[in-house]
Amino acid sequence: MKKILMLTTGGTIASLPSDEGLAPTGAGTILSHLGPAAANYDITTKEILTLDSTNIQPEEWKIIAGAIYESVRDYDGIVVTHGTDTMAYTSSMMSFMLRNVPIPVVFTGSQVPIAQPLSDAPLNLSCAFAMAASSTPGVFVAFDRKIILGCRAVKVRTTAFAAFESVNYDYAGQVNSSGLVLNYAAIPPQNGACVLEDTVDSDVYLLKLTPGTNPKLVDLMIEAGCHGIVIEAFGIGGLQFVRRDFVSKIEKAIDAGIPVVVCSQCLYERSDFSVYQVGQKALAKGAIQGFDMTREAAVTKLMWALGHTRNLDEVRAIFHTNMAGEITL
Amino acid sequence: MKKILMLTTGGTIASLPSDEGLAPTGAGTILSHLGPAAANYDITTKEILTLDSTNIQPEEWKIIAGAIYESVRDYDGIVVTHGTDTMAYTSSMMSFMLRNVPIPVVFTGSQVPIAQPLSDAPLNLSCAFAMAASSTPGVFVAFDRKIILGCRAVKVRTTAFAAFESVNYDYAGQVNSSGLVLNYAAIPPQNGACVLEDTVDSDVYLLKLTPGTNPKLVDLMIEAGCHGIVIEAFGIGGLQFVRRDFVSKIEKAIDAGIPVVVCSQCLYERSDFSVYQVGQKALAKGAIQGFDMTREAAVTKLMWALGHTRNLDEVRAIFHTNMAGEITL
Repeated sequence: MKKILMLTTGGTIASLPSDEGLAPTGAGTILSHLGPAAANYDITTKEILTLDSTNIQPEEWKIIAGAIYESVRDYDGIVVTHGTDTMAYTSSMMSFMLRNVPIPVVFTGSQVPIAQPLSDAPLNLSCAFAMAASSTPGVFVAFDRKIILGCRAVKVRTTAFAAFESVNYDYAGQVNSSGLVLNYAAIPPQNGACVLEDTVDSDVYLLKLTPGTNPKLVDLMIEAGCHGIVIEAFGIGGLQFVRRDFVSKIEKAIDAGIPVVVCSQCLYERSDFSVYQVGQKALAKGAIQGFDMTREAAVTKLMWALGHTRNLDEVRAIFHTNMAGEITL
Repeated sequence: MKKILMLTTGGTIASLPSDEGLAPTGAGTILSHLGPAAANYDITTKEILTLDSTNIQPEEWKIIAGAIYESVRDYDGIVVTHGTDTMAYTSSMMSFMLRNVPIPVVFTGSQVPIAQPLSDAPLNLSCAFAMAASSTPGVFVAFDRKIILGCRAVKVRTTAFAAFESVNYDYAGQVNSSGLVLNYAAIPPQNGACVLEDTVDSDVYLLKLTPGTNPKLVDLMIEAGCHGIVIEAFGIGGLQFVRRDFVSKIEKAIDAGIPVVVCSQCLYERSDFSVYQVGQKALAKGAIQGFDMTREAAVTKLMWALGHTRNLDEVRAIFHTNMAGEITL
């Protein structure tokens, strides 16, 4: 019987109604909703946080990563229950903090509180436990019968049970009438000893451009002591430079030692700033390409890279190394 | 024979290769690629801009709206060719600037330059002309055989021909083997005389939250003289308030007379900040709900509303009036 650790952090899956809406509470009852499937596993539970996931931030990432790391040698797999709102950010960051994790680490949650009779929590839990018992190392999200690489998950829907998609990458697996069917080609191998690298620099700003965005916003970010910027530009790689010149602002930030990662604000498909003139100008100034990364992965990877080094060339080298399946180079 | 005006603004549909990538050029050859379909219409062309759409900004919106407005009485329909990168912003803004437009105004463009043999430009042009000749008033995007309400279009893919989707709203129509098939239930009626309301206030910032985002960014936006803020929060309506307190920053902005519109960063489905405690707190401070609006529509509508009034209650009233199908109340 596989030994599975369930770490709980709060979230809707552990929410109860209160006078002011749903509020996170203790998670003691979660396991009871796994139902008869629980008998298949030797389960230990540990409540590490009791937070609505909107409040799971870099400080909590360190707690979650530490709780996983200290248990990877003692269990066959770990399930982490987590609110859905920031789950993709956490699962992305865990993909970087926990190098070569030797067991499955599977995030799950629910759109509907577990106490409600039509909640998706029991289904998501049963899929997460099956994945945790699959002997397939890596960080994953299990949701709505899909298994997604942690660094490719994006919450794309606010209310549907199918809240998460694997963006720009194949699903790592699915649950169908045959059971858990894994897509091994989409699961990067782990190489070497498991290492916890949990130092991050959270002074990273995400700048999503719109027509009319004032470039002085970049000046404000620099004044605020920002250490890194992720820009969500237009389409495959466009940003305005007439009247509101973001190309020279990128140069200014880079000259101030601040790495700038350029992505698309389109949810799907790859960005490539070498296609259009203006993108080429941004690259010539030293912008780092995010290519097909999710914004969740780009932001967390930049925080993680800056936790290691502030050297621009080193940040660029980290960014253009595929660490966990997060980027196609 | 229907009289159709084609306004060109540049974009990939009018791009030619240059030493530094694709660059916008004159649009003289676009019409020749409509092919035999051109014989069905009495076509006039007018080149109003020659810009990569990343550089189509509030100043250009005024030019485009003016060019449309001055021609609505002289033509049966108008096609506007436009780069894809910011087309959804422009088509959203035109939905607000041109009230009760009496004819179809149809934006289109292409993912591949028109000079290339496998370009999607001829197909998109033929669909746009068919829609422009349909006698169905409103602002639309025609792309990849789909007709989308201008204020519901989002560019969701960087390279696929199916670049645009109608987000949180039915398609207004499609082209299939029966021809152009319209979904009249999804096309809001126009009521009253056509009015050009092209005054906008572009001092609006879009703030997409990530875990770790520093709330002082809101202080800096206020100091920079920002007149409105759109926040892309988490999930159905979450934002952090532990350690990094965005709820009090929303209150600070509103106290300074700056309207704050709250949306989700999930691409699909409705946000509703009344569901969770933290969202309720934001609403109690005076945040305006974006509900199921696209971010493109939310940003442009806030710019447009601020062009009319800086009064917070009036901005809220404008926001919670469905003007062009952009919001489900």
